[in-house]
Formats: sequence, C-alpha cells, structure tokens
Amino acid sequence: MSKSQVGVIGASGYVGAELIGILLNHSSVEITEISSGQNKGRPFSELYPSFTGQFDQAFVDNDTVIDASDVLFICLPHGKSEELVKQCVDKGKKVIDVGADFRLNDLNVYEEWYGVRSLFPNLHNLSVYGLPEMNREKIKQTTLVANPGCYPTSILLGLYPAVSSQLVDLKTLVIDAKSGVTGAGKGLSEAVHFANKNEGFNAYKVGTHRHTPEIEEKLVEMGAEDVNITFVPHLLPVNRGILSTLYIDLKEETEAETIQDLYEKWYADEPFVTVLKSGQWPNISHVTHSNQCHIGLTVDERTNRLVIVSVIDNMQKGAAGQAVQNFNIMSDITETEGLSMVAPSF
Amino acid sequence: MSKSQVGVIGASGYVGAELIGILLNHSSVEITEISSGQNKGRPFSELYPSFTGQFDQAFVDNDTVIDASDVLFICLPHGKSEELVKQCVDKGKKVIDVGADFRLNDLNVYEEWYGVRSLFPNLHNLSVYGLPEMNREKIKQTTLVANPGCYPTSILLGLYPAVSSQLVDLKTLVIDAKSGVTGAGKGLSEAVHFANKNEGFNAYKVGTHRHTPEIEEKLVEMGAEDVNITFVPHLLPVNRGILSTLYIDLKEETEAETIQDLYEKWYADEPFVTVLKSGQWPNISHVTHSNQCHIGLTVDERTNRLVIVSVIDNMQKGAAGQAVQNFNIMSDITETEGLSMVAPSF
Amino acid sequence: MSKSQVGVIGASGYVGAELIGILLNHSSVEITEISSGQNKGRPFSELYPSFTGQFDQAFVDNDTVIDASDVLFICLPHGKSEELVKQCVDKGKKVIDVGADFRLNDLNVYEEWYGVRSLFPNLHNLSVYGLPEMNREKIKQTTLVANPGCYPTSILLGLYPAVSSQLVDLKTLVIDAKSGVTGAGKGLSEAVHFANKNEGFNAYKVGTHRHTPEIEEKLVEMGAEDVNITFVPHLLPVNRGILSTLYIDLKEETEAETIQDLYEKWYADEPFVTVLKSGQWPNISHVTHSNQCHIGLTVDERTNRLVIVSVIDNMQKGAAGQAVQNFNIMSDITETEGLSMVAPSF
Amino acid sequence: MSKSQVGVIGASGYVGAELIGILLNHSSVEITEISSGQNKGRPFSELYPSFTGQFDQAFVDNDTVIDASDVLFICLPHGKSEELVKQCVDKGKKVIDVGADFRLNDLNVYEEWYGVRSLFPNLHNLSVYGLPEMNREKIKQTTLVANPGCYPTSILLGLYPAVSSQLVDLKTLVIDAKSGVTGAGKGLSEAVHFANKNEGFNAYKVGTHRHTPEIEEKLVEMGAEDVNITFVPHLLPVNRGILSTLYIDLKEETEAETIQDLYEKWYADEPFVTVLKSGQWPNISHVTHSNQCHIGLTVDERTNRLVIVSVIDNMQKGAAGQAVQNFNIMSDITETEGLSMVAPSF
Repeated sequence: MSKSQVGVIGASGYVGAELIGILLNHSSVEITEISSGQNKGRPFSELYPSFTGQFDQAFVDNDTVIDASDVLFICLPHGKSEELVKQCVDKGKKVIDVGADFRLNDLNVYEEWYGVRSLFPNLHNLSVYGLPEMNREKIKQTTLVANPGCYPTSILLGLYPAVSSQLVDLKTLVIDAKSGVTGAGKGLSEAVHFANKNEGFNAYKVGTHRHTPEIEEKLVEMGAEDVNITFVPHLLPVNRGILSTLYIDLKEETEAETIQDLYEKWYADEPFVTVLKSGQWPNISHVTHSNQCHIGLTVDERTNRLVIVSVIDNMQKGAAGQAVQNFNIMSDITETEGLSMVAPSF
Repeated sequence: MSKSQVGVIGASGYVGAELIGILLNHSSVEITEISSGQNKGRPFSELYPSFTGQFDQAFVDNDTVIDASDVLFICLPHGKSEELVKQCVDKGKKVIDVGADFRLNDLNVYEEWYGVRSLFPNLHNLSVYGLPEMNREKIKQTTLVANPGCYPTSILLGLYPAVSSQLVDLKTLVIDAKSGVTGAGKGLSEAVHFANKNEGFNAYKVGTHRHTPEIEEKLVEMGAEDVNITFVPHLLPVNRGILSTLYIDLKEETEAETIQDLYEKWYADEPFVTVLKSGQWPNISHVTHSNQCHIGLTVDERTNRLVIVSVIDNMQKGAAGQAVQNFNIMSDITETEGLSMVAPSF
Repeated sequence: MSKSQVGVIGASGYVGAELIGILLNHSSVEITEISSGQNKGRPFSELYPSFTGQFDQAFVDNDTVIDASDVLFICLPHGKSEELVKQCVDKGKKVIDVGADFRLNDLNVYEEWYGVRSLFPNLHNLSVYGLPEMNREKIKQTTLVANPGCYPTSILLGLYPAVSSQLVDLKTLVIDAKSGVTGAGKGLSEAVHFANKNEGFNAYKVGTHRHTPEIEEKLVEMGAEDVNITFVPHLLPVNRGILSTLYIDLKEETEAETIQDLYEKWYADEPFVTVLKSGQWPNISHVTHSNQCHIGLTVDERTNRLVIVSVIDNMQKGAAGQAVQNFNIMSDITETEGLSMVAPSF
Repeated sequence: MSKSQVGVIGASGYVGAELIGILLNHSSVEITEISSGQNKGRPFSELYPSFTGQFDQAFVDNDTVIDASDVLFICLPHGKSEELVKQCVDKGKKVIDVGADFRLNDLNVYEEWYGVRSLFPNLHNLSVYGLPEMNREKIKQTTLVANPGCYPTSILLGLYPAVSSQLVDLKTLVIDAKSGVTGAGKGLSEAVHFANKNEGFNAYKVGTHRHTPEIEEKLVEMGAEDVNITFVPHLLPVNRGILSTLYIDLKEETEAETIQDLYEKWYADEPFVTVLKSGQWPNISHVTHSNQCHIGLTVDERTNRLVIVSVIDNMQKGAAGQAVQNFNIMSDITETEGLSMVAPSF
C-alpha cells in the first residue's frame, strides 16, 4: 500500500513534537513537510535535540505543507485553525485539527468561552468530534476531525458508560483533575519555571477552565440532560499525564460490582481503554508514553457516590496519539498502527 | 526562664526526625532523651545524616525517656501509645501524642476503623484534640493533647468557618486530597520506591482512609449535623505537603466575597493560617518547611458550589509543627516559638 | 520470514520489563515464555501494570522457557547465568546474556571483583562482548553475546575513537559518571526510597564499582596500554539515563576541531551513536526511552585535556536496547528493528 | 543589644529571597528596607507568596535602602555592585557584596572573564574574600566582604587542607561539579523550563565557567603554585545543592587514613564544615536548607589519586547563608546566629 502523504502545521509546539515522534514510526505514513510560524528554515532537531540525526527536516510555511500533503495535522492555538482548515477542505485534503476551533458544536458557547467568533460556521457541519470510543463510525466517514481536549478525553472516557446508562445524577458531578506540565506547552512562564514547579502542586483556573463547556456539551450528547459541572484542574510536578477523579451521585443504590461489570463490558473491545479490576487504581505512570486510558472505580457506600479515576497521557491519548488514532480510522488503517507502544514501567 | 525538659518517644520515624529539628532550635526546650524500639544505642545522626555533628545523641528505651522528661512527645503507630500515655500521666508528665490513639472521642468508631480496643477508656476524658484554631482554650488547660492527623488538619481548617457558620450542606461534601510521600513514612515499599513514584500519581484507599471518621467527628463538633463524607487521598511525587480541594454545596446562593470576608475575619488573628486574596490559589511549595496553612476559595456560580483549597506541610502543621504549637500553648510559651520559619521560596 | 521464538529468563526485573516492551513491538519476534524465580504463575502485568491487557502472560520456570525458544535473553544477577548459558548452548540455542558473567575475558579479574569463580571456563571462549560499534563482525558469527554493562557502554563509546587513535594518555583518565535510579533495579532500599532520593544526589562505590575492570579490559582491547582508571559513579534523582564525563590528557597539543572531526567520521555510519556539533552538549533527556548514544566533546586548551560527555539510556543502550541490537545482528535482521523510537522530547 | 539596621539591595532575586528568610529569624537584625530595580512599590510577598502575611514590605529604591541601613547586603549581577559599594563605603556603611565584583584580586583577570573593567580599583584593596574558614580574622576587621561564588565555596573547602599541606599536584586537578537549578536564578529560560529540566541532566559551560579564575586565584592564596584547572559544571534536576567531585594526584603515596585525619583536625572547630567518617559519602539532601558543608574523601590506591566529594546548599553556604555568616563575623555576633537550622531529613 502506498503511504499517506502527511503534513504537520504548527509542528514546533509540544503536540507537534509528540506527533512527529509517532509518525516517524508509523508504517503507512510519509511525513511531507512541517511548518512553524516562528521557526521557518530551522531544522526541527534544533528545537528538539532528541531528533538529531533522526529527523532534521526544516520548517517551511503553511502553504507548502498543505500543497505537499494529502492529510494535514493542525496543531495551533485556538482561533488559528479555522482559516487553514477552510483552505485544506477546499483543496480536498483530510484534516485532523488538534486545536480547539472545531470541538464545540455550539458556536455561541465557543465564542463565550474562547472570545473568538467563527468565520465559517458552515464548515463546522463537516467536523466530527474525534473521540473514537464515542464517534468511531462518524470518524470513518468524515474528512475533518476535531481532536478532543486532553482533560475532556480523560473525563469523558471515565463517565461514558455511567452517563449513557442513565445511572448517575449529573447535577452532583465534581471533577477534580490533575495534569502534568506539558499541558502548559512549550512557552516559558513562572508557573512552569523548574524551581517554582518542582516540589510544588496547585489548583488553577478553578471553575473557569475552557475545557468546561466541551465536557458539558459531550456529556449531553452521551445522554445527559442539561448539565452544569464543577471542574477544577491542578498542575502536577511531572512532565506527562492526566488523572481525573470523578465524583457523582448514583440515582439509585447500586452495587460496585454492577457498575464494574458495565464498564468492563462497555470497553471490552476498545484497544485503548482498560478497566482495571476492582480494588486496583490507575497511576499516571502506567500510561505515559502510550495511547492507553486506564480506569478504576468504586461505589462509596457510605454516600452512594460513584468514584471513578481515569488516567491518560495528555500528549498521547490526550493529543497526538488520539490524533493518529483518528487518522488511522479516517484512513481505514488498523486503528492501533503506530500506537502499540506499551507505557514504559519506569 | 528554665527550659522545659522534653523527651521524644518513637524518635526514629519521620515525624520524630522533623520534631528533633524543630526542638533543637526552640529557645525554651532542652531535649533530654529519645527512644526507638529498633535502634537503641544507635546515634540519631546515623539514621539521619543531616544531623551529623549537630545531634548525635543515641536512642535509649522508653522508660529512660519518660523518667528524664517533664514533657513527652509520643510518635508511634496507632495502638502503641495508649499504655505509654497512661504511664506518663500517672507520673504527672505532660504528653503530646502525635499518633492516632486519642484523636477520636467515640471509641467504638475508633475500634471499627483501627481495629484496636481502648484499654483505658477513662484516660480519653483527659485528652484534647489539638487543633489550636478550634480548641486553643482547652489545650491551655490540659496535660494530654491528641495531635490531629495530617489530612484532617488541612481539611478542618479549610471548612471550619463555613461549617460553623452553617453555610453549607454537609451531605454534598467531596474531599479530594493530595499528599507528598513523607506521609507514607520511613518504611520501604513498592509505592514509594523512587522509580515507581517518580513521574507517577495515583489515588489510594479510595473511600476507606482512616482519617475519614476523624474528619467527620470534628465536623460535627464544629456544628455540622451527622455527616458522611467522601474522602479520596492521592499520592504526589513530592516529599512534603498536603493540598485538599473541598467541594460543598452552599445552602443558599451566596456571593464569593461574602465567604471570602468571613474567612479573612475568622482567621485574622491566627499566626499559622493565611487566607489568600480572592483569585489567588495556594501552592504546596508556599508552605513546606513551615507551620503555615494557606487557604484559597471561590464560589462556582454555575453550580452554587463552594470550592476551597487548603495546603499545609504534612510534617509541620500536619504533624511535628502542630505538636510543638500545642506544646507551646500547654506550656504558656509564645505560640510561634520555634515555628517562625517562613517556607523557603524554592 | 518466520519469527524468531524468543524467551526471557529473569523477566521480572527492570531489564526484563524493558526488554518485553521492546520485543512486543519487534516485527520479527514472537515471545515464547518468560521466567522468574520468585514469581512463577503470576501474570507479568501484575508486576508491571502498564502491560495490563497488553501482555498478561504468566511466569514459568527456566526449563520451560529454554525448551520453547530458539533465542534466550538471560537477565540475572552475576553468578546466576553461567549454568543456564551452558544448558542453552548445549541445546543449540542462541543466547544474549544481559548479566555480568561473560563480560570479562580475564576470569581471575572477574573472580577478584565479583567473588565468583567460573564453572565452565571454556564456555567463555564462545562469548563475544556485545558492543556492536566495536565488535559487530564477531557478534554476527557468535551464538553467545555478553551484553555490556551500562556504565561501560557509555564510557567506551565516548573513548573509542580517541583511544584507538592513540591520542590520549590513559594514565590520566578520570571518569565521573552519573546514573538514574533504575540502575539500582527493582529491589527496595534506603538509597532509592523516594523521600531519600528525591532532591538528593550523591557519589557511591567511589573507586570500587564492579564496572571498573570491564572498562579497563575493553580499553586495552581498543589499543590502550595497561590502564588503571579512577571511576566514580553518582546516583541522580531521575529514573533513567547515564551521563559520563570523561577527562583525559592529550598526548600532544591537538585542536578540538581535529578530534571533533575524528569522532564524526568514526561514528558516521553508526545508527545509534550521534556526535553532536561542536558547542552542543548532550542531555540525558535527549536519549531516554531510545537506544541512542549522544556524544559531545571539547579540548580544554588551558590544560590540554580532552573532555568528552557521553549519554545513553541505561535501560536501553545500556541494557535491553543493546541486547536487542545484538539479537538483530546475530539474527541477520536489520540492526535498528524494534529500536527506532526517537527519545520523547519531554 | 540593639539590633543591626540591615538593608538588602537587589532583594527580588533568589539570593535576596533566601537572605530575607534568614534575616527574619536573626535575633540581632532588623530589616530596614529592600530594593529591586524592576519591582519598586510591589510587596515582596507578591513575588514570593511563601512570605504572605510574614513579610509584605514593598521594594523601594537603592538610595532609600542605603540611607536607612548600617549594613548592606548587595545581591546584584556582576558589574552592577561596584558603584553602589563605593557609595556605601563613602557613607561609612558595612557591605557584604554577594555578587562577583570584588571576588577577584586580579582586576585584569576579572576583566578578561567578566568583560567588565573596574571603575574604582582602589576600592578593591578594602575588600576581603569572605570564605570564613580561610579568612576569618581578616573578615573581622573589614567593612567590605566579597561573598564567594557557590561553586568556589564547595570546591575550596574541599581542597583547602590538602592544598595548604602541599600534598597534591595541582596540575592534575579535575573538578566535576553538579548544581541544582536555583543557581540559574529567577530568570525564565529554556534550560530550566520544567519539562526540559525534569528527568534531564547535562554539562554546560564546559571549561568556560566564570568561577574558574576565582577558584584558581584562591588556590594560589592557599599555597598552590600557579594553577590551571579543568572545571566542568553540570545542572541537576533538583532545586538546591552543589556536589563537587574533586580528583587530584597525590605527590607521594599517602594512605587514606592520613588524609582523613588531616581533614578531621583541620575542620574540627568549624561550625559549618563536617568531615564525614571514612566510607561515608555526602548527599546534597543532607545539607540543603542549612549552612553546612559535608566532605567525604578517599584515596584511589590503584591510581594514587585523592578523591574528595564536597556538598553545600548553593543558596545557603553558597550564597545567602555564607553572607550572613560573614555579617555575623564582621558584627562580632555569634557566628552561627540565624544559621543553626539543621538540614531537614526529607
């Protein structure tokens, strides 16, 4: 089979770097060109010395990437993708947009939280929210995937079976999430200055994080009634990983085994979601550098509250890995191709 | 003023080590003797090389410590303190029990969660729960203080004003707490083997941690009606610090400023509790190596839920520091003596 | 092409876990059986939860592994491999011994440093020291490879061109090496208890580490005259990686460019050794999770001393990765098969 | 005794923050004013939230600090102190300059390495190099102390007895030093961006670090003949601490015990230098947050090379702690006042 001609726009950021690492070992991909607004002409390996001698290709401009490629990964901050996506779609290219521009169906909500107004509202009809465990069939048939946010991926996978099965009272949902620092990206800041972050831990954007409406909208798509959630993210002193602890009241008294059983069956055939045995709890380090999501759960019988813990690698299942998973699905390639690495044990 | 003759029983553990460090710089204390069940005859500095040349005193047996001292700090696992406390009290010594044996008033609940039956139930009438911000007057007058657990300290300080003021619905309380590894102590284990813990993060004892009934009992003492809480601790890859994120529904719609104001006034004169300005959030690294508690809060208006974040150093305000604070209060010494160190900025 | 039937003896340790991770993604390998002295019957994923659902195979005994396999990786402490290797060789199997038993040609030196006497001295004539950059042709033709130690790999690759070219005075060689904690293995100890190691750094086994004679013997094979080195290892608070800083007097005044040029040419065709441009210095994080070795060098003109810095991942090029590289060479498979992962950038 | 009126110029940097922390607990000090070029008017605790409620004083300008104080600590980058020192000295103030401007006696060497020409060469006659273990008597009598660099402090203390006793051949000296990231200061940079530094380790400024001539000049003052050293610093993924490993040939065969004995006697009365027992090796974590220096040593008999390992906290004995030690000596205060904290054990 001939290889897909794949380009990456915005390849100088962390998601871009992770993506290049995956694509280089993907048997059905040939990387055509990569772009970066601020690094044109510089070799990729100058920014990421791990790649020295392995991928020294220089950044070019976006147009060159688009013209050279059949499939585009776009890794740009919100508000920067939409015009490029328009251009790609008009030229008949497939697009996986790793940024936020196409994640929300409700463009008013998008504008409210992101402060950006859509220029091409109709374009959004094309896009599919790229959580394969929820939308696999739609992803197969689209040419434009909106790759989910990192927090929403971990949270939605943790809630999907319970919410779809109408077991839980969404009004009581509390989401306490913790992320590694790569979520904050390549940009320098006080918050991720080593001496500040090392041995530190804090909450941030309490109740105001932009992933909030994305979680809410998709929960409704899963079958929840109109939901308002409390979502508090925290910043861990580790490079990678998201652990979301989810607290939600059960509508009726339900035994832990019943829900354990539901979850195990729900995800039995999913290559990237593992429901741990009762009594086991996931650890961020068990999924980092892999595309896996691990889920553990119990019922707190004293309060009849369901507690779910879900972990992913924010750079893999939370970004670049899921993007490649979506690419595989769109391209009718084995879904796990390029993503079979098991998380290193240390 | 003559110095207090102070002994430490169980000084070989982490709390003991932290306590020795504080006491060595306490102007009103002379350390008499220290004991350790397994290390008799060995110099303290052999276990803790930081102390080489600074405190090389050898461990002796418990009786020697008791006889040489007017005040005893007892740092032993649960179930190990009660008999020693009896012996100390009978000899007219003052005791700060840093372990769990005297924390709960309800001895049936204690037996249920700890699997240990009290041998001297009457002895428990003497003891005062040593959270100074709650029980300062009682501590002044007792000879036996039960030093609070680390998680309960951070959580109770975070909830005290709101609970006492009857603003919140305790049935909705969710406590998501995160601790550094010194909470797991000096004992070797897979969980805190460096290569396992480094870059890792996980929940543990979900809904089953022994600090649960301690939190519940003291919340009732603060004015709550009978409470059942969901308490989920997590283990951070840092040495020190506890951050507790507290989620609780407000009984009525209340503005964040009202609660901010309540908290600021409540703790205005407390030397070791700082309520951060609205919009600021505490960081574990801002209190480690100090006896401070920092509290930040907001109201999630979308859900009318109060969100409080409380941080302490588990070894200081969560253990040894609070023990010395209690000692100061019991001894009519300035409450901050020996505890004035500001958390290092890095 | 049919897949090699590969077994792993001693698969429960850290090198075993790393090796399984590599072999699972190796296109020409089928893992037959794995053994562990202490974990027979337990699933591999119980020890290493990353593998849950990916590799749940149970440990069996050594004989079962040997009989089921054409090629054996043996990952055992020194003194434990020799008899098993004898058994494998007698049965016509290929062996990569990842332990120390076959690394030294001089069995008296081995006995002196390791306290173990060889039972089958003749067997050692078969074995080849598995540093491919030095012994590739011999590895192709052998059935028994002694996989090098982690420190020696980083050090020998750093010195090979200069020593072979007779540029340096070996009597002046100082080796200051720093390793991540996985080098200390899976066993629990005070040294790698999280609270002890985190934010800590120390030298250990100063001048007495068992890798010393291995380095010396191979330097002589490279062309050095009889050498006595000073080798001081240190333990870094990171999971992976070795950085060796090598200091050695140049025999004659030589410009840095000359040596830079020598090194670049020497390693130009090596897939796993990268000589960085003049002025660039390697970082452990640029090679971890990959089989790469990065080398930087300069001449300190003030002292006419050559300074070389060499980094590898101790678990990959320093152990499991190099073992697979040797397997590929012995099996006439593309040398990079299964080892093409680029070090993640974070 | 009335308290010294002490001001801090350049108090917004890391050394300033550490210094304020020490001075707040110093019984003979009253902090008058603090300055910062870029933060005038901002409260100190806004930059360093640990100090919230403990030290909220606002930054003023340099002149205000000088006029309000009897003693000045100046914590500025090289080239920025000299004029301020002139001003202070002219006004009869005592000065501890924590920067580099007065460390070197040879102003040509200073200009060569720092690219700055002295404006007041005569002023340098006043200054004393503030390594108390070497220059205590001179410090007592001066009004201007040049506080040593962090690397030189650890290295000079490690070499002082051997060099003064003419036991070693300085031409063979190799210094391999490793520092925590606070040595790089408060400024944001790629090198200390959390995701870059965490799990990373690298050499930097190989053979070109500006502390090189400082080490060389003071070794000559200790009795060495003209020396050229190789000094290679490395950056550890920890917040604090310097570990220097020193390699130097003994002039004659000397037993380790002889040198151990020399070192123990040499430093027997020093409050801040501890020579560890033979066989013990220092760890950065055993001195962090304290003003201690720990030294371990051995003779590598195979090469007749002396190996010394010396550790300090770069922010304490390597900067602010030593500055206060010098202040105490200059002010005829007990030398350990404000510096008696033992390094926390975790």
